[in-house]
Amino acid sequence: MIIVMKPKTEQAEIDKIKRRISELGCEIHESRGVNYLIFGLVGNTNVIDPDTFLANEGVEKVIHVQEPYKMANRLFHPEDTIVKIGDRQIGGEKFAVIAGPCSVESEEQITVIAESIKLSGAGFLRGGAYKPRSSPYSFQGLGEDGLELLKIAREKTGLPIVSELMSTEHLERFVEDVDVIQIGARNMQNFELLKEIGKVNKPIILKRGLSSTIEELLLAAEYILAQGNTQVVLCERGIRTFENYTRNTLDLSAIPVIKRLSHLPVIVDPSHAGGLWWLVEPMAKAAMVVGADGVMIEVHNDPAKAKCDGQQSIKPEKFSNLMNSLRELAKIEKRTI
Amino acid sequence: MIIVMKPKTEQAEIDKIKRRISELGCEIHESRGVNYLIFGLVGNTNVIDPDTFLANEGVEKVIHVQEPYKMANRLFHPEDTIVKIGDRQIGGEKFAVIAGPCSVESEEQITVIAESIKLSGAGFLRGGAYKPRSSPYSFQGLGEDGLELLKIAREKTGLPIVSELMSTEHLERFVEDVDVIQIGARNMQNFELLKEIGKVNKPIILKRGLSSTIEELLLAAEYILAQGNTQVVLCERGIRTFENYTRNTLDLSAIPVIKRLSHLPVIVDPSHAGGLWWLVEPMAKAAMVVGADGVMIEVHNDPAKAKCDGQQSIKPEKFSNLMNSLRELAKIEKRTI
Amino acid sequence: MIIVMKPKTEQAEIDKIKRRISELGCEIHESRGVNYLIFGLVGNTNVIDPDTFLANEGVEKVIHVQEPYKMANRLFHPEDTIVKIGDRQIGGEKFAVIAGPCSVESEEQITVIAESIKLSGAGFLRGGAYKPRSSPYSFQGLGEDGLELLKIAREKTGLPIVSELMSTEHLERFVEDVDVIQIGARNMQNFELLKEIGKVNKPIILKRGLSSTIEELLLAAEYILAQGNTQVVLCERGIRTFENYTRNTLDLSAIPVIKRLSHLPVIVDPSHAGGLWWLVEPMAKAAMVVGADGVMIEVHNDPAKAKCDGQQSIKPEKFSNLMNSLRELAKIEKRTI
Amino acid sequence: MIIVMKPKTEQAEIDKIKRRISELGCEIHESRGVNYLIFGLVGNTNVIDPDTFLANEGVEKVIHVQEPYKMANRLFHPEDTIVKIGDRQIGGEKFAVIAGPCSVESEEQITVIAESIKLSGAGFLRGGAYKPRSSPYSFQGLGEDGLELLKIAREKTGLPIVSELMSTEHLERFVEDVDVIQIGARNMQNFELLKEIGKVNKPIILKRGLSSTIEELLLAAEYILAQGNTQVVLCERGIRTFENYTRNTLDLSAIPVIKRLSHLPVIVDPSHAGGLWWLVEPMAKAAMVVGADGVMIEVHNDPAKAKCDGQQSIKPEKFSNLMNSLRELAKIEKRTI
Repeated sequence: MIIVMKPKTEQAEIDKIKRRISELGCEIHESRGVNYLIFGLVGNTNVIDPDTFLANEGVEKVIHVQEPYKMANRLFHPEDTIVKIGDRQIGGEKFAVIAGPCSVESEEQITVIAESIKLSGAGFLRGGAYKPRSSPYSFQGLGEDGLELLKIAREKTGLPIVSELMSTEHLERFVEDVDVIQIGARNMQNFELLKEIGKVNKPIILKRGLSSTIEELLLAAEYILAQGNTQVVLCERGIRTFENYTRNTLDLSAIPVIKRLSHLPVIVDPSHAGGLWWLVEPMAKAAMVVGADGVMIEVHNDPAKAKCDGQQSIKPEKFSNLMNSLRELAKIEKRTI
Repeated sequence: MIIVMKPKTEQAEIDKIKRRISELGCEIHESRGVNYLIFGLVGNTNVIDPDTFLANEGVEKVIHVQEPYKMANRLFHPEDTIVKIGDRQIGGEKFAVIAGPCSVESEEQITVIAESIKLSGAGFLRGGAYKPRSSPYSFQGLGEDGLELLKIAREKTGLPIVSELMSTEHLERFVEDVDVIQIGARNMQNFELLKEIGKVNKPIILKRGLSSTIEELLLAAEYILAQGNTQVVLCERGIRTFENYTRNTLDLSAIPVIKRLSHLPVIVDPSHAGGLWWLVEPMAKAAMVVGADGVMIEVHNDPAKAKCDGQQSIKPEKFSNLMNSLRELAKIEKRTI
Repeated sequence: MIIVMKPKTEQAEIDKIKRRISELGCEIHESRGVNYLIFGLVGNTNVIDPDTFLANEGVEKVIHVQEPYKMANRLFHPEDTIVKIGDRQIGGEKFAVIAGPCSVESEEQITVIAESIKLSGAGFLRGGAYKPRSSPYSFQGLGEDGLELLKIAREKTGLPIVSELMSTEHLERFVEDVDVIQIGARNMQNFELLKEIGKVNKPIILKRGLSSTIEELLLAAEYILAQGNTQVVLCERGIRTFENYTRNTLDLSAIPVIKRLSHLPVIVDPSHAGGLWWLVEPMAKAAMVVGADGVMIEVHNDPAKAKCDGQQSIKPEKFSNLMNSLRELAKIEKRTI
Repeated sequence: MIIVMKPKTEQAEIDKIKRRISELGCEIHESRGVNYLIFGLVGNTNVIDPDTFLANEGVEKVIHVQEPYKMANRLFHPEDTIVKIGDRQIGGEKFAVIAGPCSVESEEQITVIAESIKLSGAGFLRGGAYKPRSSPYSFQGLGEDGLELLKIAREKTGLPIVSELMSTEHLERFVEDVDVIQIGARNMQNFELLKEIGKVNKPIILKRGLSSTIEELLLAAEYILAQGNTQVVLCERGIRTFENYTRNTLDLSAIPVIKRLSHLPVIVDPSHAGGLWWLVEPMAKAAMVVGADGVMIEVHNDPAKAKCDGQQSIKPEKFSNLMNSLRELAKIEKRTI
């Protein structure tokens, strides 16, 4: 951590800061420039809140050198993490494909979709039982019944199921029923929820918040890891920008960046990012060539009648074509699928 | 709702859309331009999800005419809502001032601050017991002990207390202990939490999410209102932009906009927005002149030792000066304080 | 164009608007809903400024149906445009690779780089003679001398040259000396410059502004096209967002979107977008699989001594590897390179 | 400047960086932490491009301590700059009010507006002769004729005139004809234009770009100052964000921030920021209380027939009311108007 003192700060103020640094158990390296006085802090600076120093009038800036997350940090854990789900995995050489409808609507709907995506080669079935919707008047999901239907689809196809958890209240049920718990973008900083899922033994897919930085995403993962659950998969799903032709802007550069900063697997959701079905295939392909560990794709047998997000869902035939494209790319990228 | 069909869409597709509109119980007004065919839908379009139509290949755009929120909409509720808290209120002629530390740290700290802000004329005491922090390694608040200390401060000063609720788990306790429940920016779209606080009889301050549009804020309020709790106060606290000299960008234009769209009271938090103590006074004054119904100010007796957000907290003396400035402006703005 | 009138607007105001629409030569289709009155305008609405209507108190919203650009619009020009530069081209089956240093620094530098990129298979040489720099104290380019050195490099390698024009003052010289004129992101809405380059017979690469929407980019292209120059190539180079690990956020979804809206070729600059050399290869590959018509890559023989943007430049060896990766992908994508 | 070296960087690489620092004439203060090695550079670091260092693989981060602008920096010029325009001024105790139409349309229009704003107490007349418009099909201004009409209005009212310059081609004419040259948001980083206006003896109003940081605005001002023209007034006019109810988001926090960082006067344009006439008055008032040195207001006698930006223009009567509100606030704020 580096503290830059304002020009012309009085000696008493400078001494106060130096005492504070010492109290926090850090060593001080002092460097006096023409206009600024700079303190380099050496020690366990991760645990120091930079705001403490910024509240002093003599302090101009406080700069983090060390990343504020530890367990998610590749620096302290150089090998890639591979998250195991039964005999499947996310991370490593294999490219994971998670597919399914935005929300579970009926037994027929979910089983028909599950069977078709299995046939095309998907590895996991996704489907929402509890849906976070901007408006209270939009379809909110089938709840527990949705989970039951997902289990039926799993039984028929053998595909592990991924579903979104929105409240600690349903956690126990999710641990029992689903194979991977998804935390949605809107709950990425629902810290109470993060702490609770950190205590269970179940893989987690953590989606990046619409306006969360990569650092905040890794800190959110750190909340889970710090409680003992190390099976965390990150998911880029688009960030909010001024461009509104697309619903959000898929930040594909985030993939190589996260790979550099962290050992956790990272997947891409091209359906939610653009919010347009015809963007799904090109963006899924791009996800593979930038090094993502998988994709999460919305597939619906009748998008025009889907109860949510029909405009971003692709039909089973299009999904089958997409799988073929991904398989071709996988050869070049030295991935299996 | 308006549906714009793509040029050269086949008649069969057009007929399909028209049938769908009829099924939804809407009347169709058709308008054929040189390149586009346009359907105006008349009926209860609030309950129609525009995505349903966007999933059809022939549909170019779907445009909402009617705002998607009803109970929060001034169109259907022209008079200003005033939220009562004991013998005090937020909304109406009186300008509400809520002040206090970011987090409750000790009995001495909270009572000293409470007494000083009362002396300066604040109407409400704020203090965090549960703190949403980006890093799991930052101070997370005193929890239940914090609530107890707030109650002691209330007893000593008579100031109603405002505190942030982060989980439905603590809701019952909050209803009993605090006078106003605050929902933080990061939980603005924690829909499960919104539904639960919609069922209690307790005033709510709902903060705008860092990257939430005004429409999304009003839809989040609608979640609460739709459950029966009509005592909702909105709070602008800065949005995330590319500018990073300030922590967030305080969107003061949002105040007159919200006043036009909704009847709910709206206050401003200038402390979190900028994240810099010297911005608090000018931005609080600006909040008053643009028509806000109050401000929420972080005050700490020793910001340099505050356990969180010290850099944006002002000392009791500065708060007293700020109150004087606000009182002067209030005369011009025809508000009492 | 659709005009939505506010609820309870007086008849006199409604009549005024209707007269105005008629004066502008448009037919009116009226549609009266429960709360709103809607006018659909049929006629040559492209030439109507929506602000004209918004200035009336009775008008709630004005919505464009027709895109505001014509010559750049695929609707009126369904076939892909191919821009020819001598015996080369941008657009069509062939994937264009433009490479070279951020700025021309010396004869040796530019010729060494030109020869190496040619060997690796690049089709065009880029190099800045006039440099737009945020600070007046940064290196501003060699100016005319830079152009001379580019010409020497062209003579040695046969590669057509691409260089950035910043002022109409140098236009004549550029038309004579360079093969493709580049307009930088900061000048995308320098409308005086756009009008002038619209009058010359020379291919243009128009970079998207840092905070320009896709629609604004197409309108900027329209400025050039409307003056008669139809040889316009668009370039996505990253947009400004809240994420600051990367310099900008490369908006790859923009490629399929632009392809859908316009017939103009579109390329990607992965070097400026991320501002990090190790992001160049993955993002260039992604550009190809989402359907871009080419890439523009910064290559420098000694990045650590480059006079600008060294941190985002790759060395000739890395560029050669990148070309190999692109060639592999090209086979799958049915492009030549 | 501070350079943070990556963990495990080899000694040869470290030595290379240290040699480079010495070559640039800087002294090195070294500080070795547990994971990182940090170099503090002391010397004339303003002239060093941080990218030079970032191009080295061993370098993790480069951090500026000193602001990159000098002449605009309050650190080196503590007193407020006051820009004189004849017997008037911008900066200092007096609050400047610039008003007038978006564009000059006719002699009658501009003189009627000029006379009415003068009566209400405006100090300067604004009016566009050359208009930067997103679409080539929108009204582009009257050009030279517009300047002539502005001069007639000046003669009749004595109000100094402010008009926007878009190209160096018209510079000579502007220097002769107008009293203050305005540089629009879209040209804030038109560096060739900035250099040229830096060479003339004429006050400049420099508007902040839609997506420019405060630091970039000050660097743009530095371009002008560095050429010798010290009469620069900055103007906040809204930044581009995800919120689209308002056209842009007025960043009022930028005013106290700029006042702290720079000695240059700074004004606010509330008309362009929101793009809505009913936001002008509250935001103009807010501009005063946060410490701006003036406002620039669009006034039109018939907004519904204005050739541009009618929706954000207020009528002379509303402007008169606004002036009264500002006068009341000025008393409290100890400003004259």
